[in-house]
Amino acid sequence: MRRKKKTPSGCVRDVRAGENEIIEYLIKRCASSHPMLKKGIGDDAAVWRPAGAREFWSVTTDMLAEEVDFRREWTTPRELGRKSIAVNLSDLAAMGVRPRFFTVSLGMPENVANRWIREFYDGLTACGCEHGAVLVGGDLSGADKITISITAFGESENRKILYRSGGRPGDLLYVTGTLGKSAAGLKLLQQGTLRSRSGSRREALRAHRTPEPRCAVGQWLAQSGSIRCLMDISDGLSSDLPRMCAASGCDAEIFAKNIPVFAESASWGCDPLELALSGGEDYELLFAAPRAKKHFLENLPPEFPPVTHIGTMLEGNGNVWIAGEGAARRPLPAGGFDHFSRGRPAGRFYE
Amino acid sequence: MRRKKKTPSGCVRDVRAGENEIIEYLIKRCASSHPMLKKGIGDDAAVWRPAGAREFWSVTTDMLAEEVDFRREWTTPRELGRKSIAVNLSDLAAMGVRPRFFTVSLGMPENVANRWIREFYDGLTACGCEHGAVLVGGDLSGADKITISITAFGESENRKILYRSGGRPGDLLYVTGTLGKSAAGLKLLQQGTLRSRSGSRREALRAHRTPEPRCAVGQWLAQSGSIRCLMDISDGLSSDLPRMCAASGCDAEIFAKNIPVFAESASWGCDPLELALSGGEDYELLFAAPRAKKHFLENLPPEFPPVTHIGTMLEGNGNVWIAGEGAARRPLPAGGFDHFSRGRPAGRFYE
Repeated sequence: MRRKKKTPSGCVRDVRAGENEIIEYLIKRCASSHPMLKKGIGDDAAVWRPAGAREFWSVTTDMLAEEVDFRREWTTPRELGRKSIAVNLSDLAAMGVRPRFFTVSLGMPENVANRWIREFYDGLTACGCEHGAVLVGGDLSGADKITISITAFGESENRKILYRSGGRPGDLLYVTGTLGKSAAGLKLLQQGTLRSRSGSRREALRAHRTPEPRCAVGQWLAQSGSIRCLMDISDGLSSDLPRMCAASGCDAEIFAKNIPVFAESASWGCDPLELALSGGEDYELLFAAPRAKKHFLENLPPEFPPVTHIGTMLEGNGNVWIAGEGAARRPLPAGGFDHFSRGRPAGRFYE
Repeated sequence: MRRKKKTPSGCVRDVRAGENEIIEYLIKRCASSHPMLKKGIGDDAAVWRPAGAREFWSVTTDMLAEEVDFRREWTTPRELGRKSIAVNLSDLAAMGVRPRFFTVSLGMPENVANRWIREFYDGLTACGCEHGAVLVGGDLSGADKITISITAFGESENRKILYRSGGRPGDLLYVTGTLGKSAAGLKLLQQGTLRSRSGSRREALRAHRTPEPRCAVGQWLAQSGSIRCLMDISDGLSSDLPRMCAASGCDAEIFAKNIPVFAESASWGCDPLELALSGGEDYELLFAAPRAKKHFLENLPPEFPPVTHIGTMLEGNGNVWIAGEGAARRPLPAGGFDHFSRGRPAGRFYE
């Protein structure tokens, strides 16, 4: 159970003041759990062990709503299908879980053509298949706007699962890939650029429309035995890192110059660091490893995306600090770049 | 994966001509399944066996959309929560599966109060708990109208699972409880009766607002060893029985006078037999047993709802016949009472 903060389609959406309260309420209410259950509400996915089973099983669910999470005119149905399952598989990747099966409920208005629906399912099942997840069921329903709800489940290998918690002061922080690329793609769409011949613009549009879940990396990290905590970056580093810190009972310091930003986006008016910190929808992985185990990086398979050391876990209780070039470190407020940089209100990029 | 035909909130909703085509398309597309998978798209729930696990696991999903499946002014949030999980648990009951866990994605507009949300979850978790299902995760999301998507998981006992298929010519057909009560409750709501002092009206309203999933009965039937096929009645006998017949490769004949109708509904202008056949949302169980095993009924626990013999499976390929008092049997078209009775177009009740 987690709360989506962003409006990745670029539409306005207020953060509900009381949603955290609801999640806290549910965590309390559902504390009376089940002997099979290893992890309930609060992480990227819930974990249980079926009686007698060799492995742990994990389940995660995500809902995407038209004009909140996507716009039909900015994506093909095939791309939307891919993205819908990708964001769920990313939650499994975030625990090192191997995807196995998924279900999808699709609510839609009458005016959606069957061809659109078929192509949506084509993208959905193709992306699922690439990561080992088979569509096993679902529901077709009427709705005013397209609503997609996917539940994905998978199994661990050797019962190794990584949570958000587990980081300790002194651990090194890493991210996969490039951050802020998806938000840079969204910016292009907002500017009216739906396609482009420029390589970097195409890359940004692709990152936004069809993010790639880091399933193989997540599984490799869980099996490596070198990692203490893992999660995916769906809301941006400035929102997700504090969650990892809070779950681990630590603070963290990150170094602005180390963050793997998508520098090319400056050419269409973006601030690459701002997008890396609070753009969201990157679906890259964030993890922490003890300093003594940092040699694990040498064994990373060459086909994996680059992994970058961005900072360090510190003694503390959930705060994140960012150190700029030559500047003293400053607090990085959850969800926003505002206090660090130009005083922009959090989330303004999406308005 | 199944298609919802009805508009149980009483709102107009056309049956999409092409939705069956989509489901057929998916069944073909997802035929390349997985060695763990026992049953994919096409039954009430999908079934797999986790490596090494003692039992089979099943998963089912359902989406409820405001003004399609419910109206906020006709139900309390607590009742809506109960119903949302109940319709999913009914799909598990329909295979004899023991509910274990569920996830819920809730999309909602800004104007929904946190108190409403808390009460919704209260109803949801209370009903889940009564049937052994624990809430383990979910998603809170923005949406124009309230949209609820639930995925429920459960395990079989002794690996006994009942499917829609498996019925054979000569088997006796049974249903649990009373049919048409929920539709009679909907009729009251449409007439403006939101509450009543009359016992039968209250019963009908309760059946519509908070249907009781037949989990214990389904599990008992699966363990009895006397049953050949089982499903739940969510769209009405005239829609669901043909599905069982088609899956089993049989025809069926039912006897109008045997059908356990909710006769009291005649007093507020309903046709009890019509509602029993095509009202929908009863969430009772429909099953077939070989004639030689009909003595199993004698062992039914006394706390179970009544079980009624309504007809017989015949040689055939999916057709259903209904025999009236003293009249020759006539075909009962899927989803409609029209050819049998008064020439009403199918689904007109819901317009």
